[in-house]
Amino acid sequence: MEAAKNTRSVAVSNEAFTVPGFLVSTVACQMRYRNRPDLALIAAESQAGATAAGVFTRNRFSAAPVELCKEHLRFPYKKAILVNAGIANACTGEMGLQRARQMAELVARSFEVDTARILVASTGVIGQQILIDPLAKATPELCNNLRPHGWEQVARAIMTTDTVPKMASTRVELSGKTVTIGGVAKGSGMIAPDMATMLAFVCTDAAIEPGALSYWLRQGTGNSFNCITVDGDTSTNDCVLMLASGAANNKVLKDVDNAESLLFGKALEAVLLDLAKQIVYDGEGATKFIEIQICGAADTESARTVAFTIAHSPLVKTAFFGEDANWGRIVAAAGRSGIPVIPEKVSLFFDDVCVFRGGIPLEGPGIEEKASQVFKQQKLKVRLDLGLGESGFTAYTCDLSYDYVKINASYRS
Amino acid sequence: MEAAKNTRSVAVSNEAFTVPGFLVSTVACQMRYRNRPDLALIAAESQAGATAAGVFTRNRFSAAPVELCKEHLRFPYKKAILVNAGIANACTGEMGLQRARQMAELVARSFEVDTARILVASTGVIGQQILIDPLAKATPELCNNLRPHGWEQVARAIMTTDTVPKMASTRVELSGKTVTIGGVAKGSGMIAPDMATMLAFVCTDAAIEPGALSYWLRQGTGNSFNCITVDGDTSTNDCVLMLASGAANNKVLKDVDNAESLLFGKALEAVLLDLAKQIVYDGEGATKFIEIQICGAADTESARTVAFTIAHSPLVKTAFFGEDANWGRIVAAAGRSGIPVIPEKVSLFFDDVCVFRGGIPLEGPGIEEKASQVFKQQKLKVRLDLGLGESGFTAYTCDLSYDYVKINASYRS
Repeated sequence: MEAAKNTRSVAVSNEAFTVPGFLVSTVACQMRYRNRPDLALIAAESQAGATAAGVFTRNRFSAAPVELCKEHLRFPYKKAILVNAGIANACTGEMGLQRARQMAELVARSFEVDTARILVASTGVIGQQILIDPLAKATPELCNNLRPHGWEQVARAIMTTDTVPKMASTRVELSGKTVTIGGVAKGSGMIAPDMATMLAFVCTDAAIEPGALSYWLRQGTGNSFNCITVDGDTSTNDCVLMLASGAANNKVLKDVDNAESLLFGKALEAVLLDLAKQIVYDGEGATKFIEIQICGAADTESARTVAFTIAHSPLVKTAFFGEDANWGRIVAAAGRSGIPVIPEKVSLFFDDVCVFRGGIPLEGPGIEEKASQVFKQQKLKVRLDLGLGESGFTAYTCDLSYDYVKINASYRS
Repeated sequence: MEAAKNTRSVAVSNEAFTVPGFLVSTVACQMRYRNRPDLALIAAESQAGATAAGVFTRNRFSAAPVELCKEHLRFPYKKAILVNAGIANACTGEMGLQRARQMAELVARSFEVDTARILVASTGVIGQQILIDPLAKATPELCNNLRPHGWEQVARAIMTTDTVPKMASTRVELSGKTVTIGGVAKGSGMIAPDMATMLAFVCTDAAIEPGALSYWLRQGTGNSFNCITVDGDTSTNDCVLMLASGAANNKVLKDVDNAESLLFGKALEAVLLDLAKQIVYDGEGATKFIEIQICGAADTESARTVAFTIAHSPLVKTAFFGEDANWGRIVAAAGRSGIPVIPEKVSLFFDDVCVFRGGIPLEGPGIEEKASQVFKQQKLKVRLDLGLGESGFTAYTCDLSYDYVKINASYRS
């Protein structure tokens, strides 16, 4: 599918970008993939490093690099992030953790910093050990070729079943200085809410303290990556890592309850949401992008439950693929969500076409035809008004196609 | 897929049966399907009727016939059950309820009994109204052709996307009398636990009081239909209805805490489980039957959560379809289930082949090959030992194939 169009008030670009204070590079280390870059390095220019924050999978089988990052983030200033694609280093036991640490050591040695100053991330096959030799051979080239440009290559180097690289950036004025926020992401299967849901690396030149950075990253992730689902499965390796260089020389953001900090938070959220939508657009086998908007709920949590029950329903997802304006499967999914929905109070819209109200489908001139037209679109909105309150939640998902089955019946993740 | 093989200690037959005290008939009423029987009647021979019990969908958008049955079951003696396939009479508002009542009235008039003595069930398209004219024309023929044989025709008349009729029966000795329990079911998509999950109609000639019948039906449903899943979706119309004629002349079963009653309960559960497994075998697009056995859990509820998280995972289900012995997706699903799984304590088996233990995959001569052989089978068992306690739960499911997508992208349910 085509890249997501950004519709938020914050203007987000999907073009090439640089982030002052950061350098990147990639290399083909030949660990599993052949003849394609599969190793990426994101480094702070300053030897003192950048302020860092991370959000991680809640999967109990969290991968070794996730465990290592959590350990290293106790000290929130980092020099670099090393990422490999091909082997996930998940379910690899003690040896896996040791090798994740060796990955960090290779880079730390090259930069002459403490190992705890390096973050690592991996994506790919579960249950196989990282190979250190190819990494050791590739690291010098990786560290020598660092440059400000090359984020698209980073986005490409971290791809597995992704079909397109995913990047987004925006700019915001803080205390008279222009601050950049730019990031890359990967992910197209094993995507579901409940945490970071994939790999994303975001950098900013904002001057911001660790507590505020961590707060806004957590907030933004909750309103972006945790609102998307491709197939309901969450991975062992999911994480969002963020670095802030301070190169913009804005007045340091210390708290989260002032206008400037809020502006930063909103801009970050816009970048994260854009990246999250790109993941749904690139959902395994996806042919359609669907926004599931629940409104009129008693509270946000119940709106979320209804939204994801619909978004995860294979019956609903195959109806999207079949371009079948099947309101019955949607209300039936809402009805089994566990939320006390009252059929007579529910209204259902496909884009702006009301198809269901007062417990029954609407009949009238051309309603079925109009609804069918909406389902023929590549991008569409399902709006379910529960009529019970003032809260809402929006989930983003894709359809379930032959290709999803094909990709996942043959790819060993 | 072939019909399920019964492996329980109670011998269940899938051959033709009769149940003393009951007559059945079917007819093509042409309401939606053309030239195939789509209306079935199950009637108690005695004018006084049979003891009745029911278990129903918990979907908030429960269909009109479900609502009517709940109302009618306040008085637990019934003369007959009328079932139509093609239109579900769900999301049909007041008019739907009125038409469900009219369905019951047509049969009640023919038998000269009160309308409340009739149960009705529907399956098919949601949101369309039942047509009373074809039903009114067909009812006389239906009531005049009642006979003891013909349960297979009943099983066929209630099919929608089902590819095979589903029936099962067993016999048990109670106070020196032979008691028969026989039933039919339909369902292949929109199958998930959380209640009755499809249509099933079970009759017995046992003499049993309403309270005991209702108890055993509820117990049996919990251990059968509520253990299966095809796609996680539960329907608006799901119900299991049961009638007991007393024609076997056994000593009336009044309580549930004696050996005779328990024997009846076990026999009923065996019939229900056999029907439930037949539904999974006939799962939309299914090519494999998978038993997900969780053991070593702290409690049954957590075992159930892990079992269904695995059974509902599209990534796991497509791996089954691809015959990929992908233990990584299975442990990852367990890890995101919300249950505090400890990776180091987990063991995973495919049939009897241990593939994962102590947080890492097992390596050794031929393990991968043996696991692959298991995945080539049409029927296989996944056993996950959590190593946390003594409780367990077994779920039954099928794979996710191209055909599931094909069926549900084109069929309007």
